[in-house]
Amino acid sequence: MLNTYQSHSFIGCESSFDDAQIVIVGAPFDGTTSYRPGTRFAPNQIRIDSYGLETYSPYLDLDLEDYQIADIGDIEFPFGNTPKVLDAIEENISTIVDANKKPLMIGGEHLVSLPAFKALVKKYPDLHIIHFDAHTDLREHYMGEKLSHATVIRRGWDILGDDKIFQFGIRSGTKEEFEWAKSHTHLNLFDASTLESILPKLQGKPVYLTIDLDVLDPSIFSGTGTPEPGGMMMKEFLDALIMIKELNFVGADVVELSPHYDPSGVSNAVACKVIREVALLLSK
Amino acid sequence: MLNTYQSHSFIGCESSFDDAQIVIVGAPFDGTTSYRPGTRFAPNQIRIDSYGLETYSPYLDLDLEDYQIADIGDIEFPFGNTPKVLDAIEENISTIVDANKKPLMIGGEHLVSLPAFKALVKKYPDLHIIHFDAHTDLREHYMGEKLSHATVIRRGWDILGDDKIFQFGIRSGTKEEFEWAKSHTHLNLFDASTLESILPKLQGKPVYLTIDLDVLDPSIFSGTGTPEPGGMMMKEFLDALIMIKELNFVGADVVELSPHYDPSGVSNAVACKVIREVALLLSK
Amino acid sequence: MLNTYQSHSFIGCESSFDDAQIVIVGAPFDGTTSYRPGTRFAPNQIRIDSYGLETYSPYLDLDLEDYQIADIGDIEFPFGNTPKVLDAIEENISTIVDANKKPLMIGGEHLVSLPAFKALVKKYPDLHIIHFDAHTDLREHYMGEKLSHATVIRRGWDILGDDKIFQFGIRSGTKEEFEWAKSHTHLNLFDASTLESILPKLQGKPVYLTIDLDVLDPSIFSGTGTPEPGGMMMKEFLDALIMIKELNFVGADVVELSPHYDPSGVSNAVACKVIREVALLLSK
Amino acid sequence: MLNTYQSHSFIGCESSFDDAQIVIVGAPFDGTTSYRPGTRFAPNQIRIDSYGLETYSPYLDLDLEDYQIADIGDIEFPFGNTPKVLDAIEENISTIVDANKKPLMIGGEHLVSLPAFKALVKKYPDLHIIHFDAHTDLREHYMGEKLSHATVIRRGWDILGDDKIFQFGIRSGTKEEFEWAKSHTHLNLFDASTLESILPKLQGKPVYLTIDLDVLDPSIFSGTGTPEPGGMMMKEFLDALIMIKELNFVGADVVELSPHYDPSGVSNAVACKVIREVALLLSK
Amino acid sequence: MLNTYQSHSFIGCESSFDDAQIVIVGAPFDGTTSYRPGTRFAPNQIRIDSYGLETYSPYLDLDLEDYQIADIGDIEFPFGNTPKVLDAIEENISTIVDANKKPLMIGGEHLVSLPAFKALVKKYPDLHIIHFDAHTDLREHYMGEKLSHATVIRRGWDILGDDKIFQFGIRSGTKEEFEWAKSHTHLNLFDASTLESILPKLQGKPVYLTIDLDVLDPSIFSGTGTPEPGGMMMKEFLDALIMIKELNFVGADVVELSPHYDPSGVSNAVACKVIREVALLLSK
Amino acid sequence: MLNTYQSHSFIGCESSFDDAQIVIVGAPFDGTTSYRPGTRFAPNQIRIDSYGLETYSPYLDLDLEDYQIADIGDIEFPFGNTPKVLDAIEENISTIVDANKKPLMIGGEHLVSLPAFKALVKKYPDLHIIHFDAHTDLREHYMGEKLSHATVIRRGWDILGDDKIFQFGIRSGTKEEFEWAKSHTHLNLFDASTLESILPKLQGKPVYLTIDLDVLDPSIFSGTGTPEPGGMMMKEFLDALIMIKELNFVGADVVELSPHYDPSGVSNAVACKVIREVALLLSK
Repeated sequence: MLNTYQSHSFIGCESSFDDAQIVIVGAPFDGTTSYRPGTRFAPNQIRIDSYGLETYSPYLDLDLEDYQIADIGDIEFPFGNTPKVLDAIEENISTIVDANKKPLMIGGEHLVSLPAFKALVKKYPDLHIIHFDAHTDLREHYMGEKLSHATVIRRGWDILGDDKIFQFGIRSGTKEEFEWAKSHTHLNLFDASTLESILPKLQGKPVYLTIDLDVLDPSIFSGTGTPEPGGMMMKEFLDALIMIKELNFVGADVVELSPHYDPSGVSNAVACKVIREVALLLSK
Repeated sequence: MLNTYQSHSFIGCESSFDDAQIVIVGAPFDGTTSYRPGTRFAPNQIRIDSYGLETYSPYLDLDLEDYQIADIGDIEFPFGNTPKVLDAIEENISTIVDANKKPLMIGGEHLVSLPAFKALVKKYPDLHIIHFDAHTDLREHYMGEKLSHATVIRRGWDILGDDKIFQFGIRSGTKEEFEWAKSHTHLNLFDASTLESILPKLQGKPVYLTIDLDVLDPSIFSGTGTPEPGGMMMKEFLDALIMIKELNFVGADVVELSPHYDPSGVSNAVACKVIREVALLLSK
Repeated sequence: MLNTYQSHSFIGCESSFDDAQIVIVGAPFDGTTSYRPGTRFAPNQIRIDSYGLETYSPYLDLDLEDYQIADIGDIEFPFGNTPKVLDAIEENISTIVDANKKPLMIGGEHLVSLPAFKALVKKYPDLHIIHFDAHTDLREHYMGEKLSHATVIRRGWDILGDDKIFQFGIRSGTKEEFEWAKSHTHLNLFDASTLESILPKLQGKPVYLTIDLDVLDPSIFSGTGTPEPGGMMMKEFLDALIMIKELNFVGADVVELSPHYDPSGVSNAVACKVIREVALLLSK
Repeated sequence: MLNTYQSHSFIGCESSFDDAQIVIVGAPFDGTTSYRPGTRFAPNQIRIDSYGLETYSPYLDLDLEDYQIADIGDIEFPFGNTPKVLDAIEENISTIVDANKKPLMIGGEHLVSLPAFKALVKKYPDLHIIHFDAHTDLREHYMGEKLSHATVIRRGWDILGDDKIFQFGIRSGTKEEFEWAKSHTHLNLFDASTLESILPKLQGKPVYLTIDLDVLDPSIFSGTGTPEPGGMMMKEFLDALIMIKELNFVGADVVELSPHYDPSGVSNAVACKVIREVALLLSK
Repeated sequence: MLNTYQSHSFIGCESSFDDAQIVIVGAPFDGTTSYRPGTRFAPNQIRIDSYGLETYSPYLDLDLEDYQIADIGDIEFPFGNTPKVLDAIEENISTIVDANKKPLMIGGEHLVSLPAFKALVKKYPDLHIIHFDAHTDLREHYMGEKLSHATVIRRGWDILGDDKIFQFGIRSGTKEEFEWAKSHTHLNLFDASTLESILPKLQGKPVYLTIDLDVLDPSIFSGTGTPEPGGMMMKEFLDALIMIKELNFVGADVVELSPHYDPSGVSNAVACKVIREVALLLSK
Repeated sequence: MLNTYQSHSFIGCESSFDDAQIVIVGAPFDGTTSYRPGTRFAPNQIRIDSYGLETYSPYLDLDLEDYQIADIGDIEFPFGNTPKVLDAIEENISTIVDANKKPLMIGGEHLVSLPAFKALVKKYPDLHIIHFDAHTDLREHYMGEKLSHATVIRRGWDILGDDKIFQFGIRSGTKEEFEWAKSHTHLNLFDASTLESILPKLQGKPVYLTIDLDVLDPSIFSGTGTPEPGGMMMKEFLDALIMIKELNFVGADVVELSPHYDPSGVSNAVACKVIREVALLLSK
């Protein structure tokens, strides 16, 4: 009798699509990355390295194995054609949302969040966004293009408008972006010290959580395209996730791991741990 | 409608076990590795990186997609208990052989070949072995142990006896091993220059092909535990494989890739290409 | 008095654009790369590492310092918009060609050759191409796209037609591509053994030389997106370049170095040496 | 006259065995490592890299050169035979203890601590253990085996019983392990915030200090088999060591450095610094 | 028309020498490095990687583009002749100072600071030094040499005398160095907790800022010759720089990045960010 | 009873100095390296990695264990003072030679050969040199200095004069160096094809063998300061060593391994294997 195994889902996420409450899907796109590419390799690397992790979180005292979570693999798309890629993401996320399941997308670069915003806002017109990132991502254009990892939150604002976007950990941008943010988003410089104070504004609202992992200090997360020293430490970031555990999350993404830039594998381990915690946040 | 994909077989090897003529199975064991370990990571890395390869071989003018090949994943076993590991391998390979299919095992360290020899010889008492390697692997003991990557071919000889083992590319061993080989195996120093001349001895015999990838020069295959400069070049090795394409192969293994030691990924690509060619050799 | 230096041209290529016979220009685009990206970093890395090289070639017995060669930097283009990138390349190469200078473009991925073909064929309608590569690059479509690194030579054939393209070192492709090549290009499997025999067909013709560096064996050139073992050795490749030194080259490119994948820097050294030799071929 | 040097002891530890109060010994075993192996390379790498360190500690205001410390090299053992390895360790540590010297063992994986516990408890029946680690190591079995790096502290409890084991920095385990710990060990989640409060329980007792270096955050210690983000920072950990400096240590080990996973060498420097501080703790 | 670019100054520092208030110059010397060399590669790597940075600092709310800053490239010097190298640096820094501009030197090893001290003290006899470092650098001799990276601050004291040198973050040295410092410099062990208290002593004085980047914890700065765990965290260090922003800086240097030891590129990003902040400090 | 081991000699070279015929000594100096330094780490890395090697050579059919070979460690010298370093080497090599033993020096950069030439020529005025290298090393000056890795063979010629120096594998230099060589040395471009023909000139002469390992193609030897593609392959080089086995060698060195540039460890294995063969050549 054969005694072999072959699982390639994220650890503890082996439900079928039909049974699942939460659906993990990969979006391995890095076509507008301006500096160091490679986030396309993140979803599969994360699946493999998730087996170095336990399914139980001592932070939330919850276990992935107690929930129905599917991992449906990666969205297929062509290389070199940004609009078609974004359409494919929006279509897939919409399918998940229409089936009354919560999407948890693994990037890819940050631009993959834009079609997710679009898919979610159709169902939840009052959508709010919690955004962890080192960079403002609020440019109107970037190197001549409106669709870019550096403009993605500005494009989100085009859809959602003022007072819906809450940004944390931001420490890089142009002077203009920081100025613009003052009247359009809630922008928390450097850390998440204002997070607790804004929780009442989000209570009961449908919230999408978008985590650009470069919000973390590159000491703990070097595997990314544009490392920006001076970020949040791992414990500080885990504390922030625990703080928001009572919100009503309707979807999430975790983006910008570029695994080849961290030969030690630590960045992969960070991404796996964050995804475990986010999956458990969605399970509530 | 969801448009995602999730395949983790070796490229072009997606047959079911029942339909398959050839069965790929991983044996991620490196428990007796004396120098640099890590071959346990080879089977999964090879599956992922096989997607950088075409299914068509211009060397053999054959295509993986024209054959029924299954990839049944990895054999499960405990860490730190060598005898139990070898038993698990023998049981699994026997199951494949008993079902009249040909096994193609991906190591792991070279000791994993021993239970495969045992499983095959039960069905084919006249089993012959073609062995590509940098090292003789003919020690009687190694650091006090009889079961070791450095004794595996000697253990094979315990089973098969004289005139059944044909060794190529050998360039490292003790003086005693080289002496011993003179009366017990066919040992071709440094390369495969005698391969053509011994083909008649193997014609019509059941042949098992065991490839320790360190037979290749470390210029092209640095991702291994004990790199031994002065090996076969890639073209020279591909030529040797083409030369033996008419033999009657009943099983094979490809061992000793340690992927973490080659950050460029080239060693993974080499292993993938060799496995494609070997799968096609088995298909004849 | 200040005694500092700041040169960032390729070594020995410090002529002004107006004085130059040969113009080096970088095309740091990798937007359609399907496997491992990063060729965008090649031009600047090559400029820096060229200072580990001598300007004198003992192969051709020529010295870069004896010619007027300019290095005008990199072409500017947006990320995530392939058609605009190709237009920018064509415009820049056309400017060089119109000024009666020979372009030597440093990629970037192989698709950057297509606009160079277009710019050159306007001036030289009888353009012929010598193509060194591991891959056929003859697909009609790739992952749904007509413009891709995997289709670039097929797109070149769309412009030039039969009997104009001469391919060497090819060892990877689909069965269909190899079939198609039989009636449309000269395709030399594995090496350049037929190069000498086809020289008469190219004598006196305007020739564009496009070198995908992955034609080299990954033992010497691991820093590339899709390493394909079994390629040309460095000396074998240098011999091929010497063999074509009497042809009438009107332009050239050297593409597909992805420097981050080779932490040893050897691939950078290879690219620098090849560019030195190619610049000297153009100088004739 | 020859003016050469050849010292391969840990820096400042060049006493003879007979003169020594403290004896450093390497245990380069990683046979049950379930994820990424390589701790076998730690002892020799640590000896070499210790020469980047000063012998003086400004933390403890003590200098290695003021004490008699021997470094007797590594214990010899076979690969692939876990029970024989553990016996060899126990025999060697017993020899050190019987000579009224304090052992400071350098791992290797964490399982090497078990025979040290056994050797020490023979002399000190009231042995207590301070355990720094990311992982509980409290499983009853792991992948079918009772002897494993993931069960080592549970095996220690088999010997010592309740109220003898004090665990700090723990942040990974199964739900069952955390439950079990509640009634059998003192387990401090995430950090060492309870360390000061439990000092009175350890005052005057014979204490063995076992440090799995993965207790540190992988930002500062990436060179380990199973990196677990969210650990103790280096200063926080040094503060903990200073806090326990008045205890009666009878032996110690520092385990789980896997040097090949951190190409920067920082993890080696961390291990060296921790060993210097631990040697000075033992000297009291 | 050509549309190419070729800038190799530090980002936002493209003023001419004559127009500049601040002059960046590289000193790629690592001739006395005792452990791991390679700081010679820092200045050019920093220039390239500075393009991953914004010119605007949200810490100081200042933008490089609002100031006149020149980057004049690297000082030329021979390898293997330390005295000639130091002379070349002193001559170049003197030229900058004599032109009433402020030098910002990028090392290179720390010994390059000595000729800068000499050049500055000629113009500012009351020169004070703020020194961030992991190491005391106060040895009288090191391995038989008076001129060494390990003696550079002692040599600075030879020139300036007592009460002029303020050291922060120090955590490594011989017992003698720490003793000597007690009566000759202000030495802050481990961090910069005393920085605020000594500001009044520096108010109005001409201050030279010398930053050995290894003052940072190697978690965030692994790319250096002698990593010393337990250092300042990035935010802590940025806070220290903000704290001194009102002082009268007359020159500065940032030394000891050895880029090859950090394959992730994070150390380069740290150096770039520190240089941006220091350039803005000089601009006041 | 303790059962530990601690040997740090090159494998099989554990004779005492007094008993030895051959004396291995390290010269870890890289002070004039112009491009990528780090050869200072070679001797100790080679000693460690030699344990991946057998003591028996199937190429020469000789075993290190059959000869008396001592490894006396590394020569001590200061950093940053080239003349003192060269004096220390000359003194140590002279001591070995005066004791009627043969030195086998492990570099370090190539300049360390110069004091060895001086020490040997005192005893053997008719000294001849066989020189394997990628570079001519025949400059009169290099960056203003007469003592440099790039001038070392020219300095050797200053001592020995015409017709004493035989260079192989050379493929890089200035046009002037190649011209100069025509009348002063025997220079074999690219390979060792003329080696056999010059053997009669060396028969019976005292010969010093200096091997700059960059003579090998960087495919097999990437761990060096200035990789120069197009070099000798490993087998070709081993054949050359076998060809000269009857000559009368009076000393040798193996230089220019820079281990940090080859993370795979293959370059270390190459250096170890070459040193084994050279030690056996000296033993004749």
